[in-house]
Amino acid sequence: MKLTYSPASPFARKVRICAIELGLIDKIELVPASVSPDKLNEEYSRNINPLRKLPALILDDGSTVVDSYVIVEYFDELAGGGKLIPSSGAKKWQVKTEHAITQGMLDAMLLCRYEKMLRPEALRWPTWIDSQWERAWQGLTRFESRGDILTRSPLDVAQIGLVCVLGYADFRFPDCGWRKAFPKLDTFHNKMMQRESVKISVPPPA
Amino acid sequence: MKLTYSPASPFARKVRICAIELGLIDKIELVPASVSPDKLNEEYSRNINPLRKLPALILDDGSTVVDSYVIVEYFDELAGGGKLIPSSGAKKWQVKTEHAITQGMLDAMLLCRYEKMLRPEALRWPTWIDSQWERAWQGLTRFESRGDILTRSPLDVAQIGLVCVLGYADFRFPDCGWRKAFPKLDTFHNKMMQRESVKISVPPPA
Repeated sequence: MKLTYSPASPFARKVRICAIELGLIDKIELVPASVSPDKLNEEYSRNINPLRKLPALILDDGSTVVDSYVIVEYFDELAGGGKLIPSSGAKKWQVKTEHAITQGMLDAMLLCRYEKMLRPEALRWPTWIDSQWERAWQGLTRFESRGDILTRSPLDVAQIGLVCVLGYADFRFPDCGWRKAFPKLDTFHNKMMQRESVKISVPPPA
Repeated sequence: MKLTYSPASPFARKVRICAIELGLIDKIELVPASVSPDKLNEEYSRNINPLRKLPALILDDGSTVVDSYVIVEYFDELAGGGKLIPSSGAKKWQVKTEHAITQGMLDAMLLCRYEKMLRPEALRWPTWIDSQWERAWQGLTRFESRGDILTRSPLDVAQIGLVCVLGYADFRFPDCGWRKAFPKLDTFHNKMMQRESVKISVPPPA
């Protein structure tokens, strides 16, 4: 199978970490790809993902699996099931919900990034940036104070999503001050960084 | 259980259609809620969903399930499993992938809508609108020409997602001309509209 990815994409990072943790990374050919909201990419849109987003998984029969969460579900099933996504009980819905929140936090952070970096300066709207950033910050607030995501084991996809949120904050918003505001998240991040999968997938210096 | 929703939200519409089709709608109290990217809503952020998005499912024990896809998974399992989301085989990944594409198409259409209606006129960026709209259009192109989503049965969540995309196009982009460009989607939409669940959940006149 092939995985389209970019080292800067937090969604691709999540999928890579999951593939490593599930022992599948050697079965996957990583294919660097470049997509950006301000550039069309007809080949990618037509043949891989009409949403023009990374990552996408291309199976050996040529069919494609998106989005990053569905790819993780696919990998989890390949690895036997119930590994990074609990297969039953209240924990299943908790992990899926927490993961969906990390996914939405990343979407919001990317919208901030596009507004601050990609959009012509004269067209930027501070209300939009504040509103998107607030979603990410409220998510951090929730994870700092509620539930057991920071301490539970075994590892799950919500924890991997959260470490990708924090890594993306370091990568694109290095002055946001999340470590000071959320000391428990800082401890969690340090612990997660001891995993090889998390360490080697840190985005390159911006 | 309670479901936060708004009649204008295509994501909430999808969840409602699924609940009706699964025979669960009588167990759900619909709770109207209002969220908008240009307004904070601290109560909603803190207590329901830090992403400030609709819909959210509030279970009887007070815990919350998001996002719309996870809610559909939850309902599907409540109804016995494998109803609107195939539980195994290639079909499972096909339906999940197609559903994820409809989800991304809706996200892109909402970004268009916010850019055109919410953002102050002087700050609008045509490149952004074109780029987001192109994702939705490429998605329609794909569904018009590839796979069996338009004709297969039994009903699945990707088909429900697609009818919500088309309904949202009618609701917010009535002049986009999708019916003329995609005659097979038009036939599909007409057929889907014969379902009570689809018909009664059409957004109110804009």
